[in-house]
Amino acid sequence: MDSEDIRKILENVRSGDLNIDEALNKLRHLPFESLGFVNIDHHRPLRQGFPECIWGQDKTADQIIKILEKMIKKEQPVIVTRVVKEKAEVIRNVISTMEYHPIPKMLTYTPRGKTLPSRGLIMVISAGTSDIPVAEEAVITARMMGNKVETLYDVGVAGIHRLVSQLEKFAKVRVFIVVAGMEGALPSVVGGLVSKPVIAVPTSIGYGTNFGGVAALLGMLNSCASGVAVVNIDNGFGAGCVASLINSL
Amino acid sequence: MDSEDIRKILENVRSGDLNIDEALNKLRHLPFESLGFVNIDHHRPLRQGFPECIWGQDKTADQIIKILEKMIKKEQPVIVTRVVKEKAEVIRNVISTMEYHPIPKMLTYTPRGKTLPSRGLIMVISAGTSDIPVAEEAVITARMMGNKVETLYDVGVAGIHRLVSQLEKFAKVRVFIVVAGMEGALPSVVGGLVSKPVIAVPTSIGYGTNFGGVAALLGMLNSCASGVAVVNIDNGFGAGCVASLINSL
Amino acid sequence: MDSEDIRKILENVRSGDLNIDEALNKLRHLPFESLGFVNIDHHRPLRQGFPECIWGQDKTADQIIKILEKMIKKEQPVIVTRVVKEKAEVIRNVISTMEYHPIPKMLTYTPRGKTLPSRGLIMVISAGTSDIPVAEEAVITARMMGNKVETLYDVGVAGIHRLVSQLEKFAKVRVFIVVAGMEGALPSVVGGLVSKPVIAVPTSIGYGTNFGGVAALLGMLNSCASGVAVVNIDNGFGAGCVASLINSL
Amino acid sequence: MDSEDIRKILENVRSGDLNIDEALNKLRHLPFESLGFVNIDHHRPLRQGFPECIWGQDKTADQIIKILEKMIKKEQPVIVTRVVKEKAEVIRNVISTMEYHPIPKMLTYTPRGKTLPSRGLIMVISAGTSDIPVAEEAVITARMMGNKVETLYDVGVAGIHRLVSQLEKFAKVRVFIVVAGMEGALPSVVGGLVSKPVIAVPTSIGYGTNFGGVAALLGMLNSCASGVAVVNIDNGFGAGCVASLINSL
Amino acid sequence: MDSEDIRKILENVRSGDLNIDEALNKLRHLPFESLGFVNIDHHRPLRQGFPECIWGQDKTADQIIKILEKMIKKEQPVIVTRVVKEKAEVIRNVISTMEYHPIPKMLTYTPRGKTLPSRGLIMVISAGTSDIPVAEEAVITARMMGNKVETLYDVGVAGIHRLVSQLEKFAKVRVFIVVAGMEGALPSVVGGLVSKPVIAVPTSIGYGTNFGGVAALLGMLNSCASGVAVVNIDNGFGAGCVASLINSL
Amino acid sequence: MDSEDIRKILENVRSGDLNIDEALNKLRHLPFESLGFVNIDHHRPLRQGFPECIWGQDKTADQIIKILEKMIKKEQPVIVTRVVKEKAEVIRNVISTMEYHPIPKMLTYTPRGKTLPSRGLIMVISAGTSDIPVAEEAVITARMMGNKVETLYDVGVAGIHRLVSQLEKFAKVRVFIVVAGMEGALPSVVGGLVSKPVIAVPTSIGYGTNFGGVAALLGMLNSCASGVAVVNIDNGFGAGCVASLINSL
Amino acid sequence: MDSEDIRKILENVRSGDLNIDEALNKLRHLPFESLGFVNIDHHRPLRQGFPECIWGQDKTADQIIKILEKMIKKEQPVIVTRVVKEKAEVIRNVISTMEYHPIPKMLTYTPRGKTLPSRGLIMVISAGTSDIPVAEEAVITARMMGNKVETLYDVGVAGIHRLVSQLEKFAKVRVFIVVAGMEGALPSVVGGLVSKPVIAVPTSIGYGTNFGGVAALLGMLNSCASGVAVVNIDNGFGAGCVASLINSL
Amino acid sequence: MDSEDIRKILENVRSGDLNIDEALNKLRHLPFESLGFVNIDHHRPLRQGFPECIWGQDKTADQIIKILEKMIKKEQPVIVTRVVKEKAEVIRNVISTMEYHPIPKMLTYTPRGKTLPSRGLIMVISAGTSDIPVAEEAVITARMMGNKVETLYDVGVAGIHRLVSQLEKFAKVRVFIVVAGMEGALPSVVGGLVSKPVIAVPTSIGYGTNFGGVAALLGMLNSCASGVAVVNIDNGFGAGCVASLINSL
Repeated sequence: MDSEDIRKILENVRSGDLNIDEALNKLRHLPFESLGFVNIDHHRPLRQGFPECIWGQDKTADQIIKILEKMIKKEQPVIVTRVVKEKAEVIRNVISTMEYHPIPKMLTYTPRGKTLPSRGLIMVISAGTSDIPVAEEAVITARMMGNKVETLYDVGVAGIHRLVSQLEKFAKVRVFIVVAGMEGALPSVVGGLVSKPVIAVPTSIGYGTNFGGVAALLGMLNSCASGVAVVNIDNGFGAGCVASLINSL
Repeated sequence: MDSEDIRKILENVRSGDLNIDEALNKLRHLPFESLGFVNIDHHRPLRQGFPECIWGQDKTADQIIKILEKMIKKEQPVIVTRVVKEKAEVIRNVISTMEYHPIPKMLTYTPRGKTLPSRGLIMVISAGTSDIPVAEEAVITARMMGNKVETLYDVGVAGIHRLVSQLEKFAKVRVFIVVAGMEGALPSVVGGLVSKPVIAVPTSIGYGTNFGGVAALLGMLNSCASGVAVVNIDNGFGAGCVASLINSL
Repeated sequence: MDSEDIRKILENVRSGDLNIDEALNKLRHLPFESLGFVNIDHHRPLRQGFPECIWGQDKTADQIIKILEKMIKKEQPVIVTRVVKEKAEVIRNVISTMEYHPIPKMLTYTPRGKTLPSRGLIMVISAGTSDIPVAEEAVITARMMGNKVETLYDVGVAGIHRLVSQLEKFAKVRVFIVVAGMEGALPSVVGGLVSKPVIAVPTSIGYGTNFGGVAALLGMLNSCASGVAVVNIDNGFGAGCVASLINSL
Repeated sequence: MDSEDIRKILENVRSGDLNIDEALNKLRHLPFESLGFVNIDHHRPLRQGFPECIWGQDKTADQIIKILEKMIKKEQPVIVTRVVKEKAEVIRNVISTMEYHPIPKMLTYTPRGKTLPSRGLIMVISAGTSDIPVAEEAVITARMMGNKVETLYDVGVAGIHRLVSQLEKFAKVRVFIVVAGMEGALPSVVGGLVSKPVIAVPTSIGYGTNFGGVAALLGMLNSCASGVAVVNIDNGFGAGCVASLINSL
Repeated sequence: MDSEDIRKILENVRSGDLNIDEALNKLRHLPFESLGFVNIDHHRPLRQGFPECIWGQDKTADQIIKILEKMIKKEQPVIVTRVVKEKAEVIRNVISTMEYHPIPKMLTYTPRGKTLPSRGLIMVISAGTSDIPVAEEAVITARMMGNKVETLYDVGVAGIHRLVSQLEKFAKVRVFIVVAGMEGALPSVVGGLVSKPVIAVPTSIGYGTNFGGVAALLGMLNSCASGVAVVNIDNGFGAGCVASLINSL
Repeated sequence: MDSEDIRKILENVRSGDLNIDEALNKLRHLPFESLGFVNIDHHRPLRQGFPECIWGQDKTADQIIKILEKMIKKEQPVIVTRVVKEKAEVIRNVISTMEYHPIPKMLTYTPRGKTLPSRGLIMVISAGTSDIPVAEEAVITARMMGNKVETLYDVGVAGIHRLVSQLEKFAKVRVFIVVAGMEGALPSVVGGLVSKPVIAVPTSIGYGTNFGGVAALLGMLNSCASGVAVVNIDNGFGAGCVASLINSL
Repeated sequence: MDSEDIRKILENVRSGDLNIDEALNKLRHLPFESLGFVNIDHHRPLRQGFPECIWGQDKTADQIIKILEKMIKKEQPVIVTRVVKEKAEVIRNVISTMEYHPIPKMLTYTPRGKTLPSRGLIMVISAGTSDIPVAEEAVITARMMGNKVETLYDVGVAGIHRLVSQLEKFAKVRVFIVVAGMEGALPSVVGGLVSKPVIAVPTSIGYGTNFGGVAALLGMLNSCASGVAVVNIDNGFGAGCVASLINSL
Repeated sequence: MDSEDIRKILENVRSGDLNIDEALNKLRHLPFESLGFVNIDHHRPLRQGFPECIWGQDKTADQIIKILEKMIKKEQPVIVTRVVKEKAEVIRNVISTMEYHPIPKMLTYTPRGKTLPSRGLIMVISAGTSDIPVAEEAVITARMMGNKVETLYDVGVAGIHRLVSQLEKFAKVRVFIVVAGMEGALPSVVGGLVSKPVIAVPTSIGYGTNFGGVAALLGMLNSCASGVAVVNIDNGFGAGCVASLINSL
């Protein structure tokens, strides 16, 4: 039920087909969802080419196929995250229009003929080569949401010259996503070099006291650089979303 | 040493006053700082009315006074965070132009006649009344950085109607800062209602298994809303900085 | 704004004083709160003698006095938790009708002439004498919410005979609140002896590996008795609330 | 040994077949179990259709079959939790009267002709689709214990309108079970909307800083809603038990 | 009610003054405590000179005085643990027969003329001088329970020769209590040198990653020596109790 | 090098074949091991039928076989812990005299004709059936070390009557080993009922907030019963060793 | 770009082929890497036979082969860590000059004819046999970096005489690497016996409260011996690197 | 007893004043300490100007004075760590030759006329001004142990240019001590720039998720630079000791 439904109620009130107590009762029991016009601004971008997102990890191929079939009918872009290769193949046997990205283990669907908006530059920086799958999850997410994305990989703080040598590339960047495991120091260094927002993504890369990414997470939350905000461990998708929301300002 | 210094070296090379080996040697030993033009974009905003920030908690009144005296000479805005009332009074006895904000325990200095830029709206939302000091730290920080700020306090998720009833105010907001202690659920709810970036600030308000804000922090990092990024516990200042960087895009 | 406001909009639509687009617009901007009739069932008990509750720990005496003055005018029962003796005295100097309970550090107000409902029996059991302040917070809370409460203190599991000897008292109890620090084993033992719901409250009593109540909390969450649910460490107030909601079924 | 045994001792005392010292000695060595009449009220519900419960995870198919064969003879309802499909099939090959529920991985046995009591409504709410197995464990448990159960799934706080739109269904509910992973915020929101007890179940759904459900657990223990009590992570069975005990008041 | 009460019931049954149903009913409601003879063996040592123990930390001087006055009347030895000097003086002003031990902060009472049993040797070893208060708590406890105690202090593992040089003293020891903070390695080394039980006591001495004794505790629980069992952090009293129970075999 | 070597040095000194400086030098470089007579008391029990113990988990079948072949030649009893069935079969194909205990996953060797000493009774109590493998590791260990062992299984605190009904069996026990997972409350209850040392063994049985046995461990370390000492999680072997050392006093 | 490039810029300035603004611009955009002469001292050892190191765990055989092919062309020594046997075989099928070390799971390449420098002695000590793989990772690393290495294995603190008997071997050692799991006490004992730097390596060997090496790590960080520094859990490679840097002083 | 004692035993054997069994017996009971010549190399540096070190935090002024009086008689350098100003004044009133260092809260004593050895350069680098007290503890410790020390403060990674601009100073440094709180990233960056050993010291500077230095500690243990070893949180003293041992190679 949308605002058209409410308009009808109001028209029926005006025409006398509905008395006021009945109308009041109908409105009272309106599911909040029907009042969707309240947060219509929120959903509008979804209807304008913003992708639908499916968390693939805990779903079977069958479940994903069913959801995808509904979505694709709406000609909307779609992202499915955390789909291992085997599951992706089962899905692509049924829905061959899905594209598979093996490094970040994502499936995407871009409606034919639709051009995504093309907003200013997001740069995704990663510390080590092992962080690339998480970085690529951010890249694909941000691209599917209509952002230009450049990457700068393998520039960890133990060889700080590798990062510093790329500084001139930073000028046109609007938002940084910085992905790092181990001690997670890279966002602090980047945040100290730029005057743009930095979204930090800790990864679970490491061993021992890395504690599955907790060391990197704590490093980022305690960053001595003040323009850094953090998302969950390995959450490249979330970083891509936040960066895209920022970039669309 | 700045680019003028390098220019002089080059001029001396051209004039023959400096041979090439000597020039090479001088450049080799140039402190990186002298190469400041490389990251000059980074420092530019600082020279354009962006405040200097001092972490007041671990400094004595004397130390803070000494730093302030230098800064005020440059006619720059200044923020000092985490200054208890007694320390603030000692400082204001010496530097009476500092303004004290007792709730967030901050000192600020705005140069006379300087008008801060006035950027789009940041909204700071807090869950409980006890979270207000952290929220106000974000408010003052963002205002000192030239942002318009509105606040919406005491709208915790246990009375979700209080938040939802304010939804129409959200339309003009560009960035949200959401401050919450206890279970830290408010950023998830806000993030689900808006299509703008949400900077979440966990506070140390709570007891028992709150663990000094860890419960709220984990709640925010695990947010099921995808537009949420998080800063350190009680880090209102950091949230203000990130939000301001975003808002200045 | 309540349902009367909506009725007026509808009447104006019917009378033609308001056209449909205007009405739609007004409804669209209705704060959710105005739709209060949706969750009116929720607030009803509050209006029927259920106490207002104030978390006193983080509030000044002044702040508490201001809130109390408003509430007492409504002739409602009021609970203020975690008020140290000195703060309580300041408050009672202004509002002498508040009663102070020094062990659980609570202030309560019972409107004259109002009789609280008197529901079935809640039994509050504590393991050690040091757990009594938390137990008493549950007792006062439950009594202020209209429940009969009995207590059984100092029956820790290391002297299991003390508990078992009281078994016959358990017959008339409808809900148990079991408060324990140290290893937190008492709720498991009680839960194994009764067929009524057990609300377990871990306390921060202990030292070393007690970790401020975490040992007791984990003991209770891992209870091998299946009728046990747990609240936060030292949360006697919360246990009183849950038990009262259960008892009012 | 039950009260009949004690009666015989007393009869022998009266008849003089047993002198008092001998009787005293016999009583002294009575296993406590024989004194079962002391906590007979506790066991009575078990004899009235309350199911026997077996923790299936750490038992072999053979062990479960042996226990089931004894229980089924008593014509009692039985629940076996956490039985993977393969183990369930081995068991059902031997005891075909067991019903398997693949989503919560439970086996149940309802004696033919026995009608379970049918108590008031328990509503089981879950935040995400991945939380459904835990939610269903609560559903089956509560149903086997004689409760009417309705479910409301996939109403997480990031889309709060989905929950709010169902508010009218809440009126007839006596006890809520709210199941959530990720940040575990849903019980706080539900607890703020209703005036009935809420049993919160954190699930291990999530990744990174979710720490296998700890984030959700902490969120629930720190709930700012005061009618919420919590059980162990993924403990749908325990939630069903507590809710049933509450509902049977 | 004790076994005399049961004897009377039985006599009344025999005499016919009580019929069997009435007798059964009386027995059914016997508090378990009355059945104390069941665990009479447990309490017997208490009546034979074993001290009563009071946890002093959370009790006021008044509360302790009241408990002591009752106990001293029974002419039993008494231990009060964790009493700061000021509190001890208040108590000794009233009960001058209490002896105060300032290092372990204990009060003890030994009935005049009573000779404690004198069992085989317990040796209390400590790693650093800062561990001595905890070690002395174990010493006083064990002595009050009738054990001979020797001490060997300041023999930490970083100077292993200090320990090894005392090896010949170990021959007559029956039980070892080994007290250590920091890395807690001493019990492992002692456990590898002797063939007697070792009770390990971690202390909270240390800083940083010591985490209030957790480092020492983990060191002891993971001891590569197989004759080591552990008590809570700083629990000298508990170690004294366990060692005394072992020594009394 | 043993005391014979030193005797020879001394004889050579007496005979003049070795001057004093040379002798001093030889003694100085004596490996400590040669001074084995210092801690000879420690090793003596090993030579008197005490088993050799091998931690089997991290060793290959081949490595274990090699160690066993040396040991068996000495006609000593041997224990190998944590050997999965497959590895045990490989070993028994080579050394058929090893006996395999499938529940605790141990291999043992008892030299033919050797009679182990038979000391007083150790009772091993376990809370749940899932704790039995750990309990049996303690049982086998204690038996191989020459102790009489009885067991009492499945007497968890949620059905406290099961434990209390067995109290009379406790009279002849010298040492208790109490094994429990979940909340680990059983040692507290047992410790409150007996006046003998209790060695508590937490198990990793449980889920969610059990954290692999940490909940049980903390429960035991914080036991309100004062005669309880604790070993590592799942360390049945260690408990058997400590109990045996105690029992041999 | 290296210092030759800068020389050319300077020469062109001198010759007038480049004006000063152009030169300044060129220098401004010099990647930092080109300024490599600044930290040339750092890279020099790399060009003098110091091995290249590859973290093999997260890389495929193909990725490793590609990297190796480039490195081997430079005739540099190479270390690849954490390569399981199967992966190593795939690699050696292609690059047969790689040597595989199965215990520490490393691949190494030593250029023919190159002689590594041969510095003073590093001793690698391990507590248990299960710690040997980590110890051997340190051994191979240190040897490939040109150090003499001796080992002393299986000298855990529970049999302290095994260590002490080897003391005379310690005289010529310059740096100690001490590897231990379980309680991690060995570095404290070694650190107390020697006056040389001790690099402590905690291993993840253990179970239960070992928490994957955390117990050992905490033991080492809290060492009461003052010459001990620590690396990450299982980080034999890192220990070898630090020890080699120390040894090359 | 030292080697002179053993010499006497040997002389008595030679002279026949002591028969061999008696001598053997005497040697058998020699305390290990008497065998001090075994680890005489260890103690030698202590006798050569190496300072005695006292942990001042847990000792009273009186205790420290007593220890100091003994030490000063030996004309040895002495360090006392963690002495607050008030305690230091009490001590200096008695022993006026002690020098107090207020920032690191240390007392030192340098014997008149004694010249400490003067070894190569140790550089102590700190990230923030708040880290300076810990850094200075390292500085004073290293100086008292005879090392040349330079400092480089306030060069945190968020302004990486401040560090890089000082690179030329690094050439003569033999050992680096890098002190950092917050995210603890500085040692990684330094470790990547130099080819000398880096001793990393995490400080407890920070708030919220810093967890008293744990964030910094984890950052350092997980450093992606391979020449970094770590000491306990705030352990400037330990870092000074390790660096000095390294520097004395």
